[in-house]
Amino acid sequence: MDIVDFTPDSEQLTWTFGGAAEVRRVRPGTQLRLWTEDAFCGRLRSTADLASASLSMPFVNPQTGPFYVEGAEPGDTLALHFVELTPARSWGASATIPFFGGLTSTDRTATLQDPLPERTWIYEVDTDRQTVGFQAQGSDLEVALPIEPMLGTVGLAPAAGEVRSSLVPDYFGGNMDTPEMKPGTTCYLRVNVEGALFSVGDGHYRQGEGESCGTAVEGAMNVVMVVALVKTPGPAWPRLETDDHLAVVGSSRPLEDAWRAGQVDMVGWLSELYGLDKLDAYQLLSQISEVPLANVVDANYSVVTKVPKRLLPRVSVYGGIHAHLRGTAR
Amino acid sequence: MDIVDFTPDSEQLTWTFGGAAEVRRVRPGTQLRLWTEDAFCGRLRSTADLASASLSMPFVNPQTGPFYVEGAEPGDTLALHFVELTPARSWGASATIPFFGGLTSTDRTATLQDPLPERTWIYEVDTDRQTVGFQAQGSDLEVALPIEPMLGTVGLAPAAGEVRSSLVPDYFGGNMDTPEMKPGTTCYLRVNVEGALFSVGDGHYRQGEGESCGTAVEGAMNVVMVVALVKTPGPAWPRLETDDHLAVVGSSRPLEDAWRAGQVDMVGWLSELYGLDKLDAYQLLSQISEVPLANVVDANYSVVTKVPKRLLPRVSVYGGIHAHLRGTAR
Amino acid sequence: MDIVDFTPDSEQLTWTFGGAAEVRRVRPGTQLRLWTEDAFCGRLRSTADLASASLSMPFVNPQTGPFYVEGAEPGDTLALHFVELTPARSWGASATIPFFGGLTSTDRTATLQDPLPERTWIYEVDTDRQTVGFQAQGSDLEVALPIEPMLGTVGLAPAAGEVRSSLVPDYFGGNMDTPEMKPGTTCYLRVNVEGALFSVGDGHYRQGEGESCGTAVEGAMNVVMVVALVKTPGPAWPRLETDDHLAVVGSSRPLEDAWRAGQVDMVGWLSELYGLDKLDAYQLLSQISEVPLANVVDANYSVVTKVPKRLLPRVSVYGGIHAHLRGTAR
Amino acid sequence: MDIVDFTPDSEQLTWTFGGAAEVRRVRPGTQLRLWTEDAFCGRLRSTADLASASLSMPFVNPQTGPFYVEGAEPGDTLALHFVELTPARSWGASATIPFFGGLTSTDRTATLQDPLPERTWIYEVDTDRQTVGFQAQGSDLEVALPIEPMLGTVGLAPAAGEVRSSLVPDYFGGNMDTPEMKPGTTCYLRVNVEGALFSVGDGHYRQGEGESCGTAVEGAMNVVMVVALVKTPGPAWPRLETDDHLAVVGSSRPLEDAWRAGQVDMVGWLSELYGLDKLDAYQLLSQISEVPLANVVDANYSVVTKVPKRLLPRVSVYGGIHAHLRGTAR
Repeated sequence: MDIVDFTPDSEQLTWTFGGAAEVRRVRPGTQLRLWTEDAFCGRLRSTADLASASLSMPFVNPQTGPFYVEGAEPGDTLALHFVELTPARSWGASATIPFFGGLTSTDRTATLQDPLPERTWIYEVDTDRQTVGFQAQGSDLEVALPIEPMLGTVGLAPAAGEVRSSLVPDYFGGNMDTPEMKPGTTCYLRVNVEGALFSVGDGHYRQGEGESCGTAVEGAMNVVMVVALVKTPGPAWPRLETDDHLAVVGSSRPLEDAWRAGQVDMVGWLSELYGLDKLDAYQLLSQISEVPLANVVDANYSVVTKVPKRLLPRVSVYGGIHAHLRGTAR
Repeated sequence: MDIVDFTPDSEQLTWTFGGAAEVRRVRPGTQLRLWTEDAFCGRLRSTADLASASLSMPFVNPQTGPFYVEGAEPGDTLALHFVELTPARSWGASATIPFFGGLTSTDRTATLQDPLPERTWIYEVDTDRQTVGFQAQGSDLEVALPIEPMLGTVGLAPAAGEVRSSLVPDYFGGNMDTPEMKPGTTCYLRVNVEGALFSVGDGHYRQGEGESCGTAVEGAMNVVMVVALVKTPGPAWPRLETDDHLAVVGSSRPLEDAWRAGQVDMVGWLSELYGLDKLDAYQLLSQISEVPLANVVDANYSVVTKVPKRLLPRVSVYGGIHAHLRGTAR
Repeated sequence: MDIVDFTPDSEQLTWTFGGAAEVRRVRPGTQLRLWTEDAFCGRLRSTADLASASLSMPFVNPQTGPFYVEGAEPGDTLALHFVELTPARSWGASATIPFFGGLTSTDRTATLQDPLPERTWIYEVDTDRQTVGFQAQGSDLEVALPIEPMLGTVGLAPAAGEVRSSLVPDYFGGNMDTPEMKPGTTCYLRVNVEGALFSVGDGHYRQGEGESCGTAVEGAMNVVMVVALVKTPGPAWPRLETDDHLAVVGSSRPLEDAWRAGQVDMVGWLSELYGLDKLDAYQLLSQISEVPLANVVDANYSVVTKVPKRLLPRVSVYGGIHAHLRGTAR
Repeated sequence: MDIVDFTPDSEQLTWTFGGAAEVRRVRPGTQLRLWTEDAFCGRLRSTADLASASLSMPFVNPQTGPFYVEGAEPGDTLALHFVELTPARSWGASATIPFFGGLTSTDRTATLQDPLPERTWIYEVDTDRQTVGFQAQGSDLEVALPIEPMLGTVGLAPAAGEVRSSLVPDYFGGNMDTPEMKPGTTCYLRVNVEGALFSVGDGHYRQGEGESCGTAVEGAMNVVMVVALVKTPGPAWPRLETDDHLAVVGSSRPLEDAWRAGQVDMVGWLSELYGLDKLDAYQLLSQISEVPLANVVDANYSVVTKVPKRLLPRVSVYGGIHAHLRGTAR
């Protein structure tokens, strides 16, 4: 197995999907050992570092990549398997940012009200207990929360010559901000350009479903992942596989459209896997869906449609690549 | 403990929240042993019974109730604790209905396309294995799915003199269609009229999150529940408590508004319980929310915001009524 | 022609569609001369009268009616023709109300921000110039705006035994808040219950499209209207006819669903009137629609789809009832 | 006055905002005489030319440009004044396209229904009468509709290094599809990159508000326009000025967010122009807004907020550039 280590310096960070030259060329089967900067570029280091003063728009949510995958052609399925995600700093940060987040008006859900106050929270990492510490600022409450590392952003170059900000989730992946993007998950994406040109970033030490205030416990991350390529037609929307679930991530606005897009793709997937007609697949999905929100704060909102494998007959998915990668990873 | 048994005959079924005379008056602390008809009024009994021919609109989703709670006054908190939900028939039914459901156009999300074909599925109950059987109609797949009984509809009379169809979920509860409304759950609702006038119905032997096709495994249900009254101000939106979670159910359109309403109520709840200011509560919620969809098919869509108790310090909720009712039920 | 005069006293005002006993029984062809109270119940009389202190929820937007129309049966088309709308006071009022309106968060589009400040504006009526006077409060600007009287609320009893607040617009009409409901307009509504039980209210001396802040120049109104009954199937959504336009008012959330519902109804209407198949009607509508917003602030949002008669061959609509009523009114 | 003539050959057409090299450099004050290809690339020439067979995705909606404006710097206001729009072919075309349009499910508002049938309509231009001819295909109706030429797409390079498809409307303009973009209109856009890099295209011989089926009467267009630069901060959203109106075009999803964004920008604009505080501007806007839909079919939906100049005191807008350009054009 090829192993590639890559830690970008500050000038190698990228801010878009598409529009950037590859940092490395890798062969399918390569294990990548990457470092990702946090969404705040590491600039929120104390509760005195407020977002609007510390951040330099649009330079947020930096990505590590893009990686050019040898042999990847438009229409193929890129499979990215995440083996390990490990906090790369001793603290994570979260913040309220003016007119950004789910429970405030924004530039789109625009109102005439004043913004919420800015505040930054620093979460100390307790490596032994594997927790991050929430500390209230208006009172004394402290709560130790389990570290559940995930990547907010996994994506590749869009189609149609577009270049999209790393803040956007869409059919090409991107800033989906789903807690399902965790160690043990394989993410399937349709390749839009030669070489796929994928990137990853936006490590979260933990995140609630919906990412209510717009930011998780953001932190630099060490990422171990394996890249694979499946020469069958890629999915319309990002698909995920774990040992326990199949999932699709739809991203759009309003939120019901994100859900609809992912659900229709899952109906198609179940139809393919089990030889069901679309009405039967729709019916079955209606009784077994698990549907956690991913984010209701980004340029598109993201919803995950999950199907538990334990409820269904065993079947081969993408040629069994997930099980293969799991085995390799072990 | 008072015990009241009630099985409505077909003329006692009700079709609205508000606008119906009480079927019984009960004292707080009463245990109710109820029978609820299914949402199809038991008319879908074979795959040949298609919805549009078998159902007689608007007579769907019949409710058992309303019950007048002695002493309940506007503003109070009604607590309904569900002890047991047991299938009352040997089969459940699900169906596609023209222009109803989440993956079809509807009278609101109106398009010029033809409706999806109608189809009815019958799920046989296997009492020993505690499963219901999915049988594909366009192919041979059969899948036994665990029974996970829940009530789609729990609500009380609205404010402002309104009378709402039992198909509607809103601030008064109603047709929320969340799998969280299961045995072991306590539902808190704000009382809008003297006596509260609550009803229950719409038993589901199981349902996926979102209730994609618009109907779950619908079945008549035997319901054992306990009614309690808390003389503190009731919540803006239905709240749920289990041994493991606190939850709020928001219902509106578009789906993000259902989410926002529930989230803001949960921020308020966490603030009250833990003495947090709203920014700290917002931050904490952002890292611990579990947000499963309830329905994306009804007159309003419903989203559940859950908070796991295990992550938070122990605290008394509504005077500990949930634990008390759990104890009583045991 | 029968003529019925009716000015409700304060105890005769109604607050819902459905759920109220008729104030008068009228025969089709009757001319009604009515007085309607303003949406604030006349309680905002100076800039010192702020909404939250002056109004007594849910007693806002009072209606004059309901009227029982002899012979009206479910499914029929009720035609309400507005002959004259004349301000019945020398001033109108508008106000910001906490968490109500289009450019603020609300109970549904809920955020954690503080509400906008409350403010009340009084518009003096200048009968000679037929204007109302806007006076800025934070500066000196004064602007005289033409009086363009309209009724915000025209509706009838809903189906399915529901009773809806007069604040709600939906398929039964109600609080549509469209400037198209002006003198010279005929409004067609499908009858849901015997006698139709229609009401009118919520006079506006003028209103912008969308009713941004949630309130127009609200004022008591003298209304002259004629009631007619057409024994053909009523429309799915409220339809309007003037000398110049046909229109449909769709009401739902999100706003695109309000638009879709009205557009699909208009496609059907054009198909019937001109013998077009639905694709041709869709195409024609795509090139001739005029689509002003009505409101983006009420319990449902309302959008008007208009078609200019001048672009289309002359055709008889509902048996020519509009022209007949126009003639009668003259 | 500099005059630049430019007719792109097929290889000079561009398909994105951003990401393309300029075709010409022009000085502020230049008059451009351009030819724009239609959105179908001229490939729909008869009713037998159906969209899915004739079009080659993503090569639709070609733009003429981009033009580099000398001296334009990020933050400036680019003013584009349209003097004449003249059909450049003797026919226009419109079509239904599978899963595209407002009254069908789409890739986002995804359902399991079959698509609507494809159909293409050809509109012959009658130069003498200045009409285009609608011909029904399922029946005999023919209707001559007035030519009302407009440009569907006017935009410039986005910020943050993004490259967007010419099908997208957003803060940078783009595919807004509003009938307000007609001769006599000045469009103000905030410059995001050096030289502004604006393009125009997507001529419509006429279009209904909302562009229901997704396509207008699409036709190649001869465009006469003047480019100006104002060295004051550009607007957050595209602004329009005619002799009669000020307008803002908001674009987002859901449709109410498009409206909110445009309305908030207009509140700000009125505040600046008339020295109003935001509450007074909100109130005034509430009574005078005209709000026609632009499109409910594109990647974002677009809504226009218009204010009639006749209702307001005369005031200088962007230094009177509109009146100046109007004068120059005459």
